[in-house]
Amino acid sequence: MQAPTNPPTPTPIAQHPSPNTHHSAPEWIWYPGDFEIWLGNIVNNRRTERGMIFPPFWKQDSHYITVEFTKTFTLEYEEHVSIFCEGRFNIAIDGKLMSNPLMTHMSAKRDTNTPFLYPCVIPAGRHRLSLKVWNQLTPPAIYIDGENIFTDGSWEATYEDKIWVDDNGTPHGAGIYVPVGHGGFTQRDQGPSTYHLDTREQLPASSEPVGRGTLYDFGHETFGTLVFKHPKSDGMITICYGESREEALDTDNCETLDYCSVNALKAESLASKAFRYVYIETIDAAFEQLVMRYEYTPYDLARSGSFRCSDDELNHIWQTAAYTMDLTTREFFLDGIKRDRWTWSGDAIQSYLMNYYLRFNDACVRRTIRQLRGKDPVTAHINTIMDYTFFWLISVDQYYSYTGDKAFLSEIYPKMLSMMAYVEGRLNDQGMAEGKADDWIFVDWTDFPMHKHGILCFEQILLYRAYCAMLRVSHVCGEQKGVIAWTEKATRLGQLIRDTFWNEERGAFLHAIEEGEMNTQVTRFANMFAIIYGIADKRMSQRILDGVLMSDDVNAITTPYMRFYELETLCTMGRQENVLSEIKTYWGGMLREGATTFWEKYVPGEQGREHLAMYGRPYGKSLCHAWGASPIYLLGRYFLGVSPAKPGYETYTVSPVTGGLEWMQGDVPTPFGRIHVEVSGNEVSVSSDGGEGTLILGNRQIPIPAGKEVRVKGE
Amino acid sequence: MQAPTNPPTPTPIAQHPSPNTHHSAPEWIWYPGDFEIWLGNIVNNRRTERGMIFPPFWKQDSHYITVEFTKTFTLEYEEHVSIFCEGRFNIAIDGKLMSNPLMTHMSAKRDTNTPFLYPCVIPAGRHRLSLKVWNQLTPPAIYIDGENIFTDGSWEATYEDKIWVDDNGTPHGAGIYVPVGHGGFTQRDQGPSTYHLDTREQLPASSEPVGRGTLYDFGHETFGTLVFKHPKSDGMITICYGESREEALDTDNCETLDYCSVNALKAESLASKAFRYVYIETIDAAFEQLVMRYEYTPYDLARSGSFRCSDDELNHIWQTAAYTMDLTTREFFLDGIKRDRWTWSGDAIQSYLMNYYLRFNDACVRRTIRQLRGKDPVTAHINTIMDYTFFWLISVDQYYSYTGDKAFLSEIYPKMLSMMAYVEGRLNDQGMAEGKADDWIFVDWTDFPMHKHGILCFEQILLYRAYCAMLRVSHVCGEQKGVIAWTEKATRLGQLIRDTFWNEERGAFLHAIEEGEMNTQVTRFANMFAIIYGIADKRMSQRILDGVLMSDDVNAITTPYMRFYELETLCTMGRQENVLSEIKTYWGGMLREGATTFWEKYVPGEQGREHLAMYGRPYGKSLCHAWGASPIYLLGRYFLGVSPAKPGYETYTVSPVTGGLEWMQGDVPTPFGRIHVEVSGNEVSVSSDGGEGTLILGNRQIPIPAGKEVRVKGE
Repeated sequence: MQAPTNPPTPTPIAQHPSPNTHHSAPEWIWYPGDFEIWLGNIVNNRRTERGMIFPPFWKQDSHYITVEFTKTFTLEYEEHVSIFCEGRFNIAIDGKLMSNPLMTHMSAKRDTNTPFLYPCVIPAGRHRLSLKVWNQLTPPAIYIDGENIFTDGSWEATYEDKIWVDDNGTPHGAGIYVPVGHGGFTQRDQGPSTYHLDTREQLPASSEPVGRGTLYDFGHETFGTLVFKHPKSDGMITICYGESREEALDTDNCETLDYCSVNALKAESLASKAFRYVYIETIDAAFEQLVMRYEYTPYDLARSGSFRCSDDELNHIWQTAAYTMDLTTREFFLDGIKRDRWTWSGDAIQSYLMNYYLRFNDACVRRTIRQLRGKDPVTAHINTIMDYTFFWLISVDQYYSYTGDKAFLSEIYPKMLSMMAYVEGRLNDQGMAEGKADDWIFVDWTDFPMHKHGILCFEQILLYRAYCAMLRVSHVCGEQKGVIAWTEKATRLGQLIRDTFWNEERGAFLHAIEEGEMNTQVTRFANMFAIIYGIADKRMSQRILDGVLMSDDVNAITTPYMRFYELETLCTMGRQENVLSEIKTYWGGMLREGATTFWEKYVPGEQGREHLAMYGRPYGKSLCHAWGASPIYLLGRYFLGVSPAKPGYETYTVSPVTGGLEWMQGDVPTPFGRIHVEVSGNEVSVSSDGGEGTLILGNRQIPIPAGKEVRVKGE
Repeated sequence: MQAPTNPPTPTPIAQHPSPNTHHSAPEWIWYPGDFEIWLGNIVNNRRTERGMIFPPFWKQDSHYITVEFTKTFTLEYEEHVSIFCEGRFNIAIDGKLMSNPLMTHMSAKRDTNTPFLYPCVIPAGRHRLSLKVWNQLTPPAIYIDGENIFTDGSWEATYEDKIWVDDNGTPHGAGIYVPVGHGGFTQRDQGPSTYHLDTREQLPASSEPVGRGTLYDFGHETFGTLVFKHPKSDGMITICYGESREEALDTDNCETLDYCSVNALKAESLASKAFRYVYIETIDAAFEQLVMRYEYTPYDLARSGSFRCSDDELNHIWQTAAYTMDLTTREFFLDGIKRDRWTWSGDAIQSYLMNYYLRFNDACVRRTIRQLRGKDPVTAHINTIMDYTFFWLISVDQYYSYTGDKAFLSEIYPKMLSMMAYVEGRLNDQGMAEGKADDWIFVDWTDFPMHKHGILCFEQILLYRAYCAMLRVSHVCGEQKGVIAWTEKATRLGQLIRDTFWNEERGAFLHAIEEGEMNTQVTRFANMFAIIYGIADKRMSQRILDGVLMSDDVNAITTPYMRFYELETLCTMGRQENVLSEIKTYWGGMLREGATTFWEKYVPGEQGREHLAMYGRPYGKSLCHAWGASPIYLLGRYFLGVSPAKPGYETYTVSPVTGGLEWMQGDVPTPFGRIHVEVSGNEVSVSSDGGEGTLILGNRQIPIPAGKEVRVKGE
């Protein structure tokens, strides 16, 4: 590989306002979750493999194509309002359709998603306004602009108003209405179907003739659309993309490519791709300049994490991890930008955690959670993977811890219930989760033999944690029956796991029960989750640390995916020094191999092209994979030591641990802004934009008032 | 009303081949049911009320937007095939994606439903071919044309292939595959999204200046799109449609209207409407000629019913009923063509029965059954009406009787199961169906007081018949467990109904239990269904006939909807003479009022405009309503006396009853063609195009061999 250039400068300024703010100005509204389902289909189907689209393996839902939006208003005087709509619509006042000849021809337009202005007069008095919108292509959405009547999060929506007419001819409505989906779309002419990320032009860092074509190097991993400026003649262009130089030049095996005519490019631009290099051959085609439209999610520097310390290699690791996260933080949190370009629940939950310490893009977390869940009926585990269903449930609980967003919990709890009903419908007689023929039991990609049959301790621990999530969310939603039921289930399963899998002699949780027999293999997976998900008590945790996590006899984890949890576990056990050394070895190792973003998998000792291969394909490995960015989370949460105590950082704690660093300083984003932490020698200083903090130094607890800096000398 | 012209000549020649035929030629395929769901959304949302769209009150589903189609082939030599697709697609051989640079730019086109040719070479040997198609706007569909490899009903489809990868990196698929949807689309460039009915131009029968505009009369009720030929200047046109002259001229109250500019009409044609009259006013607009594009479903005269007899009024009634059915037989069987232009299950089941005696358009029956059911999850009764759910279930059973189509039963049985699970989840402790707050209990529009609360005997009888339908269908599908369960449930409920509601003294089934008390009202509804759905034994039936159906003390039924069943009941009890007289009075009454098609409701004695009003609106009544056409069914089934004995007319019976007519002759369509029956005096002749028949005359049973005419003299 060639030496990389520095990662590009981050791009501040948020594109969309924070969707949790309640506006007093109009905004677009839609059925909750439908925007994400629609957008997810576009995003997940954008993956290509050597020119072919590559949709996911699971059910892709559709938005509700007909939705009614409603709100009751009291007007002192009649009011003139403007209605904008994505779809065909009607409007009723107190259940009676308004007639307007102007509508007749406009409404004949089928499947439009071009908003058009519809002027309308609402009479004085107390009136229930209802708009029913039909749109097959994009989610039905409306925007009403008036002085008193305007659309915002206070409206409600239903996908079936269930009107019925009684013996007297009186209509009754029995539809179930829920608060609308909203946020992010405040311009009347830019409805949700116009959603797009920002772009800006970038030039290649260098180019060189190779064979019959030209190789362009953009200097570092990037994502966007190639643009051929001023094409001079018609002809064909072949484009081979590469995350590595080797991949771009290997025209027979590169994972993504384009083949198109100059004339076709005038009509339609290329699709976006992930790459650092592109190799281009032309036939009868010429152009003046190659540029790319870099596509990115803007963020707010005033609510971003940062980290700097006395170790330059660690700083480089943090910067590279941040760039990896920024590239994979898109419409949703994607696993990798070349491959799979899909939302995967197990990958996403790690992205959420990293995001809470990097950009605090809570809108993207909500979008991803909604998109992953889709609609009922549940016909499979999320992404078909049992573990990923549990991670999805757990992620809602964690989202609440960081954001304190109760409204989202109310929206999503019914979907957690139907997801959990699917899970419980498949439990065995003992109430344990055992894979069925059509379940994918993933755990991790391992380089050692490990069965995934029968009752895995790992899966039970995740189920236990999912029950705890149900308990937490039902409590916040005031669902008292749920609280009782989930408490009972979590308690019972927790005890069952300890009774079944804990082996006192070995000091570890054993792997699995296969056909009634205990598989006594000891892996890091179940044992580390037993610690972080609270199955192991203090004594068990210590024995696991000594006998499993710190033991060279237990097979090593080789994916950054499960290293995330392994290192987190060590941090919770106070082993930051070990973790620091591991980060420098493993992530530093990737940098030494020329990485400009972190990889899907790294096996120290592999040589050259070996680093690029995976799944039996020479360039199968994704070189920009979100789960490779875990140092963001580890350094923010367990070195700077910041975490919420009450949901949404209403209160929080700071427990800094340098792990041997001379000094470190950094920021952790919160709903209020940032918490700034500096540690140098034995001096600690903390300040924050909001929330009541507690600085914990050994046995000392020092209050951190909002807006004030606290400076303390430790021992 | 003005004197009507004669109904137009029927339009023979079927547009689409019968979809049950297995082709040896390629045809378009899609996920079963999805074509209907997509088409249903377009059709049901086309209703307008004074310019506003008027979508239905129930959930409108969407097709699966990503579908995989698959089949395994064995090829002696490699084969060149052409692929046409509605949507973006990929193609895999034995699970491995084929790469083709030609695809790269084409596949970048988003949401296209324009089929394009994709040439492809399939290697020799045994291979599993899989194509995955994504299309948000219209159902994913493919058409492959090759010598050995071509798409037809033998392919399978899934909406989630549930691929998962095991420890060795081997992919496994656990998706559930079902036989594809197919039929009716054999042209490569005319995929399912191009579906449309036929049209031909019609001219107004007359026109006259009225007020500031012109009134056009098309001579009889019709359906289509107005076309302004050779517009001469821009300007505005106001169009008021009327099923009656009064409605068209009442610009403030007509139910449907258009207001548009001449220039706009050049870009987009008007939407279709139902009318006999149109009243047109223009501002600055002029045109040479007004025509309409009459839109219709073609049919096959060689598989059509007919009826002619010694009574000219009855012949006129049959012709008018047939025209009413032809107008309401469209993409689906609609309730009425002006209003509601929706599929309603209770209306549709009558249309099916009439259709079996008129056009035998089995494809339209299947389309309507699929469309009404939609997709899981079930969140409401069909059309929100409890009775309509039961009618939907029953209609599948009846469809099998007439068509013998087992493949459709296999397709639809899982959807019957989930529908019935919804029903059973709402039964009361006794296993009886009681309306909940969000259920519409319809029964009928009555002109007398009748509560619809509590446990209605009527609903229990429908549920009983629905259980019988489950039993029949589970038997045909070889679902032995189902057979046992449904038998048990039907038997238990049948007895419970008799024990609970039969009143020996009154000789009738009582109306309902309301809050634990028997509501002793006696209505025709429960009692007639007790006879035709087999709850009443012979003795009960006779008492019901004498004491309820023939009694003037029991409130009369005033809708053609329930008159359908009332007259059917009388026919099953051998009262054809009474039925004939009723038909002449009631349907003849509408003709005497100037009807050119039969109405939603007719109240003899109402005067002038009273006939046009309904639902509190002056022109609210639909004047072309399918449920008004029941003489088609009654005359074919109970006068000509033809019905299938074994499913699909494998065997059938003919039991002619003239009801006092001097002579009658007619045809009944079957899957084989037609059965022709002539009765004149005491001579009966029968011939058929297929099936083994039995002519029943009193106690005599005379075999009717296929293709031979049997001529018998009766007593």
